[in-house]
Amino acid sequence: MNSTTAPASNDALNATFTSVQNDTFLRACLRQATPYTPLWLMRQAGRYLPEYRATRAQAGSFMGLATDRDYATEVTLQPLERFPLDAAILFSDILTVPDAMGLGLSFALGEGPRFAHPVREEADVARLEVPDMDKLRYVFDAVSSIRSALTQPDGKSRVPLIGFSGSPWTLACYMVEGAGSDDYRLVKTMLYARPDLMHSILAVNADSVAAYLNAQIDAGAQAVMVFDSWGGVLADSAFQTFSLAYTARVLAQLKRHGPQGQIIPRIVFTKGGGLWLKDMAALDCDVLGLDWTVNLGAARTEVGGAAGGPGKALQGNIDPNVLFAPPAQIEAEVQRVLHSFGPPHRGPGIGPTHIFNLGHGISQHTPPEHVAALVEAVHQHSRAMRA
Amino acid sequence: MNSTTAPASNDALNATFTSVQNDTFLRACLRQATPYTPLWLMRQAGRYLPEYRATRAQAGSFMGLATDRDYATEVTLQPLERFPLDAAILFSDILTVPDAMGLGLSFALGEGPRFAHPVREEADVARLEVPDMDKLRYVFDAVSSIRSALTQPDGKSRVPLIGFSGSPWTLACYMVEGAGSDDYRLVKTMLYARPDLMHSILAVNADSVAAYLNAQIDAGAQAVMVFDSWGGVLADSAFQTFSLAYTARVLAQLKRHGPQGQIIPRIVFTKGGGLWLKDMAALDCDVLGLDWTVNLGAARTEVGGAAGGPGKALQGNIDPNVLFAPPAQIEAEVQRVLHSFGPPHRGPGIGPTHIFNLGHGISQHTPPEHVAALVEAVHQHSRAMRA
Repeated sequence: MNSTTAPASNDALNATFTSVQNDTFLRACLRQATPYTPLWLMRQAGRYLPEYRATRAQAGSFMGLATDRDYATEVTLQPLERFPLDAAILFSDILTVPDAMGLGLSFALGEGPRFAHPVREEADVARLEVPDMDKLRYVFDAVSSIRSALTQPDGKSRVPLIGFSGSPWTLACYMVEGAGSDDYRLVKTMLYARPDLMHSILAVNADSVAAYLNAQIDAGAQAVMVFDSWGGVLADSAFQTFSLAYTARVLAQLKRHGPQGQIIPRIVFTKGGGLWLKDMAALDCDVLGLDWTVNLGAARTEVGGAAGGPGKALQGNIDPNVLFAPPAQIEAEVQRVLHSFGPPHRGPGIGPTHIFNLGHGISQHTPPEHVAALVEAVHQHSRAMRA
Repeated sequence: MNSTTAPASNDALNATFTSVQNDTFLRACLRQATPYTPLWLMRQAGRYLPEYRATRAQAGSFMGLATDRDYATEVTLQPLERFPLDAAILFSDILTVPDAMGLGLSFALGEGPRFAHPVREEADVARLEVPDMDKLRYVFDAVSSIRSALTQPDGKSRVPLIGFSGSPWTLACYMVEGAGSDDYRLVKTMLYARPDLMHSILAVNADSVAAYLNAQIDAGAQAVMVFDSWGGVLADSAFQTFSLAYTARVLAQLKRHGPQGQIIPRIVFTKGGGLWLKDMAALDCDVLGLDWTVNLGAARTEVGGAAGGPGKALQGNIDPNVLFAPPAQIEAEVQRVLHSFGPPHRGPGIGPTHIFNLGHGISQHTPPEHVAALVEAVHQHSRAMRA
């Protein structure tokens, strides 16, 4: 079933919404009206929380956290204990998949991720294959464990759990560069000089990401998100060829339904992709994530759809740096973002919807009490906009 | 005279085009037909050239180069000796203006620029003022010296010389951060928490940049470019308020004519600004620079204007990383970029024009012979498109 062309059945919708206590996020993903604008925050389980830093110190390392089911569950739930967020997101890293391919992921203290065996030569590319998903069992175990921890006495999940992966292109950036990069020189050199090798890498990545996300869905993920964190560094035309086409290849292989028949909404977020929204509108996904450079009202006009018609839900897009300002300014910026999206869809049926989020991951330097101010402002003002 | 509303007089146009031997760049800036697409490269005088590295070694440091009239002249001309480029650009740094404000610019070996006295507190902001332009005399002396060196026996300049400055916002980023930044946390914290302070800095910056560019025009710069290198990190709405408005304040104070009555075209380049082209179309400038994420054909439709009508010339936008591919791929990408702009304007009168450039500064790792391939491909294929 293609979300862009066929409406979901009422049975599937009921199975989806009755699986959770707080269904606002899932409803907004599927372009249904909600009493307020749901929100969650990219990297909401993270270093800005003292309780996260304490758990990480216990675990000894980032990968120590991510590969231990109990630790991963604990840190995934931490932000939900503090703030009335409308979704949980699996605590993990986007580079687990290439690590399972044998590239040797490590996190040096105070630095970003690094691969011991970057993919640079034709022989490196030839060796790549879709990894045995058993090597990623720790991720699927974490998903099951988090779902159990979220399950309430009535058998429903308190909020939905989002699974995720890096996009094929974003994984390729790290795999070729071997680490983060300022200029993407190595990966772009391969792209322009040896597009055949780049396509080979991306094909393996796309099939790996699809298998990985499907296993997360089987384990209990109630929505999935593809982070195309580095799609925005590509040139026009290269983006469509080397990023978008492979995100589409992932989506084409994804399960549309979870184990209980519920619909699994798909979110695609290309940081810096605002110029390509019309291209992304053709993706078989439900939600497009937007960074802070995009005007939500303009995006709504371009791809948000009309009441009853096809379109994408929009997710985003406040600048995480707003959270360094005092609460009064945070509230003002929240109102600006909510109003930039425009009048809420009131139902019945489908229409333009907005899921509030940051335009990028939350900074480790963010004061947690400012996050509380943001969450309260979003809920309060978005309710008022519907009154 | 506002370039967006009033056509230039024929006398002024004649004075402009007869001041140079190669007038293709100036003609394209003013949206007049040319026999081929002119090109120059951002950072064309730079580390990728062995002769530049030799001169820099002699000078001892980057600022040793930039502050010495003879060295600055030598390195400005170096790329023109190798490649038939259609414009020269002053060799300097965008941070000369805040340095003249007393912030203490230095370049540590292997690192980027750094200010000894960043602007963080209200008292720092209160101390800022438009610097005495005598402190920037070395820049204006370099402009005069380069113009002399470019002057041919017939009294004309071989190619036009472009002067430049950082935009008020881009300068503010460095002034507040004190150095380059990944997240712009300090400058954005000020922007969101104390917009009054940010506006004060930007007002001083805008008036300083205007005085600086006017002095470059007096010294002989034949076009001027404002580099809004960090405009693209701003959120929608913050860009318009904190970057675009102050670029407009610069343009409002700029001399339209040089000492010989010639028109001085103005170029504005916002890296990552492709989403805001319609806003930028209202600027009183002649040319908009575009990075590689923008589709030139779409930009032409949006702001390039029709034959005889108002609009902006477009400059850009090949990914500098293309230059790491072999010549055959470089040629193919050049053709792609030229064709993405579409059919050349053939005159008479004004119409949509394209100035070929990179979408960002050339990488220090670029093989010079690949630059030669790029330049030849642009000239050859753009001539063929007009045949």
